[in-house]
Amino acid sequence: MKFSNEELIQKVPAHDLRAVARLITLSENRSARAREVQSKLFEKTGRAHIIGVTGSPGAGKSTLVDQLASNYIKLGKKVGIVAVDPTSPFTGGAVLGDRVRMSNAAELDGVFIRSMATRGALGGLSRATSDAIQIMDAAGFDVVIVETVGVGQAEVDIVRTADTCFVVLVPGMGDGVQAIKAGILEIADVFVINKADREGADALHKDIRVLLGLGDHDQEAWMPPIVKTVATKAEGIGELIEAGNSHREWLTTSGRGAERRLMMMKEHIIKTAHDILGEKIILDHGKELEKSAKDCIERKVDPFSVAQKLLD
Amino acid sequence: MKFSNEELIQKVPAHDLRAVARLITLSENRSARAREVQSKLFEKTGRAHIIGVTGSPGAGKSTLVDQLASNYIKLGKKVGIVAVDPTSPFTGGAVLGDRVRMSNAAELDGVFIRSMATRGALGGLSRATSDAIQIMDAAGFDVVIVETVGVGQAEVDIVRTADTCFVVLVPGMGDGVQAIKAGILEIADVFVINKADREGADALHKDIRVLLGLGDHDQEAWMPPIVKTVATKAEGIGELIEAGNSHREWLTTSGRGAERRLMMMKEHIIKTAHDILGEKIILDHGKELEKSAKDCIERKVDPFSVAQKLLD
Repeated sequence: MKFSNEELIQKVPAHDLRAVARLITLSENRSARAREVQSKLFEKTGRAHIIGVTGSPGAGKSTLVDQLASNYIKLGKKVGIVAVDPTSPFTGGAVLGDRVRMSNAAELDGVFIRSMATRGALGGLSRATSDAIQIMDAAGFDVVIVETVGVGQAEVDIVRTADTCFVVLVPGMGDGVQAIKAGILEIADVFVINKADREGADALHKDIRVLLGLGDHDQEAWMPPIVKTVATKAEGIGELIEAGNSHREWLTTSGRGAERRLMMMKEHIIKTAHDILGEKIILDHGKELEKSAKDCIERKVDPFSVAQKLLD
Repeated sequence: MKFSNEELIQKVPAHDLRAVARLITLSENRSARAREVQSKLFEKTGRAHIIGVTGSPGAGKSTLVDQLASNYIKLGKKVGIVAVDPTSPFTGGAVLGDRVRMSNAAELDGVFIRSMATRGALGGLSRATSDAIQIMDAAGFDVVIVETVGVGQAEVDIVRTADTCFVVLVPGMGDGVQAIKAGILEIADVFVINKADREGADALHKDIRVLLGLGDHDQEAWMPPIVKTVATKAEGIGELIEAGNSHREWLTTSGRGAERRLMMMKEHIIKTAHDILGEKIILDHGKELEKSAKDCIERKVDPFSVAQKLLD
């Protein structure tokens, strides 16, 4: 299916899912067209509730996200899912993961799933993901769920750009400790204890409460609720959705949502500037970069001076 | 201990560890002084063997790295360790992790350990880590071991800048699959099966061989060896060091080392340019950024146009 720029600008906000898919692909491929269309569509964004879901591997995030999607649909919402999957190009794992996922949520009308695999170094994954979120937002999805597979710094950075972050833990996996290690504790707006029918759910609940008590909390701060779910049995999903809604309401009434969006927008602008600059260097100054890098390796010059010169 | 720039430029290459520690701290704090000193010291770099160590949480990486360090010292090498620990500022986990580590390797003469915690968003961790490696390299360390705690994209990006990457797996944790998921398979130059006295070590060995067989390998490519270790009993460490040395030799003889260093240097230059640009925007155009971000939130303008304008 081919779309002209004008068609994309018209069809994406009209929730034409083929146009949405096409624009995300164009944007992933860093097409200049995509940028033009996205700039035009930007005014349509800012309406969706962006929910980030992260947690340790094996915590059941995919199942939970599928259940969330089904429930939002029952509530009459349009739901998009961005699955961030920094999977090896070597083994083609992303494709498999995608197929496995599609068998669940994609059967339902109104769920649109997009997997983002690693796009090389230099923050490509984070940019591609935020583009996909923005496009879905412009397309009129009420809820966009961003789910990460990894648990590292890049994944945390992606999820913290969401309005509301669900951190998913499971009992009996030393998860309390792992969550701290991965630095995901302070980004949690809602804690989810999934597989809560397993032994150790109450102990984990207690651990989280203790950890939350350690933080510096002023009176006006949001205190993350802890929701128990059994995603495979669809238990606790309604409560989780309510917790997410409460958080969104708090963002608005407390004014913290505006602060958060301003901070994220500043970061987004700087990242976009990085991106433009990186492309400009590679496209317009590729030969100079190559030569300078060789000079650096021979220690004739240092990288900081080269970078400074390229910027000038 | 205070050092002037001149003292740092003199004492770091003379392996004065207090000067090394000081310069790394200055560099972490993004001091302009650090940059000047590092530019001067850059010509002293490029001699150390940079070894990256990554793998799932609980794989015993810290113990393995401590054992590696002890063994390199017995071989008369100077060893530095950079522990990349994206730990929560909320719980202060980094400090604890550091203390636990120090009890082992730091007792030995000649091991210098530095923990790098998360330095905010926008790739700060990656930059701080590569600065620390460069400073240790300039200080005459023969081997610099970079160990990551997380298993996400940022950690993978950091480790792949090393000359030689050790990927540590353990039997019976579904690690084969986790390694693929985290995208660390294709960065492995040496596979380490740690805790190899556990059940499942042979099965894991077989799994890795099968996965390696799936890749596209030309005749001249490096075939990653698989080394079994029991770090807690100091078993297999000598073999692992030999595998690392073989890989380094191959990098030189095959010419792949030069290619790899060129690619990494180009990325490093672009990242440095990003960094300079980001600081420039925040320092010199902070107010404009703030105003533009607000305009973006009100959808009066789009972030791409703002970024483009800031660049001009």
